[in-house]
Amino acid sequence: MSAPTTPGPAVADLLGLVAFGELLAFERMAGDARLAPDLRRRAALNEMAAAEIANYRRLADRLTSLGVPPENAMAPYLRPLQAYHDSTEPRDWAEVVTKAYVGDAITDDFIREIAGALDEPDRDLVLDVLHDSRYAEFAAAEIRVAVAADARVADRLSMWARRLVGEALSQAGHVAAERAALTALIAQGDRVDVPGLFRRLTAAHTTRMAAVGLNN
Amino acid sequence: MSAPTTPGPAVADLLGLVAFGELLAFERMAGDARLAPDLRRRAALNEMAAAEIANYRRLADRLTSLGVPPENAMAPYLRPLQAYHDSTEPRDWAEVVTKAYVGDAITDDFIREIAGALDEPDRDLVLDVLHDSRYAEFAAAEIRVAVAADARVADRLSMWARRLVGEALSQAGHVAAERAALTALIAQGDRVDVPGLFRRLTAAHTTRMAAVGLNN
Repeated sequence: MSAPTTPGPAVADLLGLVAFGELLAFERMAGDARLAPDLRRRAALNEMAAAEIANYRRLADRLTSLGVPPENAMAPYLRPLQAYHDSTEPRDWAEVVTKAYVGDAITDDFIREIAGALDEPDRDLVLDVLHDSRYAEFAAAEIRVAVAADARVADRLSMWARRLVGEALSQAGHVAAERAALTALIAQGDRVDVPGLFRRLTAAHTTRMAAVGLNN
Repeated sequence: MSAPTTPGPAVADLLGLVAFGELLAFERMAGDARLAPDLRRRAALNEMAAAEIANYRRLADRLTSLGVPPENAMAPYLRPLQAYHDSTEPRDWAEVVTKAYVGDAITDDFIREIAGALDEPDRDLVLDVLHDSRYAEFAAAEIRVAVAADARVADRLSMWARRLVGEALSQAGHVAAERAALTALIAQGDRVDVPGLFRRLTAAHTTRMAAVGLNN
């Protein structure tokens, strides 16, 4: 009888990162909802936010079943993820929806890419917490409305999106430098191709920007 | 064949009030989570918050099925509920959990009382959105810890709770004055006894305060 493979510490590192990302995305979207121009949109953003919490719970439960308290697995990411959100505080509704549109999509692309480096059941779990696409459509529609109403908004939001990506990459660099096991997992030769990963993430981001009338 | 009773405008008024209360409680709890002393508590408060959104969705769906856009039914309460939260912004974790403990319980008591004035299916719906009692237990345990750690905290939180109740009553007065149909529904002679309602809400509040070592 062969023992089942026990996931290594890198898996807890990765689940902790995704879990804390969900928790913080939840908090920030809920906090940004007050910037909505009307109650319909305010409720919609809050419902988008709430979807993240169910995902957080699934990841936290998996960590617990691996014998890792979720708060321990999440702790290394507190500073970098908080720093990302603190440095990208939206000032109005158009910035709120652009942040959700750009940030969620890159996060999802990243999760989808590294999920291949995981074994089951973690691979399926991580793939399952991807954002519901109707939220991306809501955010995209809101950006298009904002851009259509005022042409200068496209320039401002394009700049904002570049700042979001820049801040996210900067914090991702800190995480990579500090979490050797996680980085090794993501980089393991035969399963994830890191330069290719960045190329694909960037290409997908550029396509998404164009789809809502923003430039990269 | 007798036509089913169509709920009057007072029902939409009431559902709108409860729905917006859920939405705002959600936002505020999620916004307060950053004050948690650790990630375990931060996640717990966010999960409490997220539970409100599922309730919001049920109420919004019922309003839609009655032909009332949820945002229209909620609009009259935007100012008073926002004013309540703005005037009771917690400064630390003990104030956060006290606000959740005091506010949720009074809200639930109030909802339970007025549900009797509704016909089905609205009565069951409204009774179903009451808070899960494990959240009240979490908040109560946190208050007890804070009070046990420093005796002066009991005085400060008792004063805070009185302020919460005072601000809530003040805003409830504005709502009652402006929403005649709602007030009439709550006050309809044979179903809700208003002076008795206030007496019961106050008595339950006093008991709850004592249960966590606070005075009224």
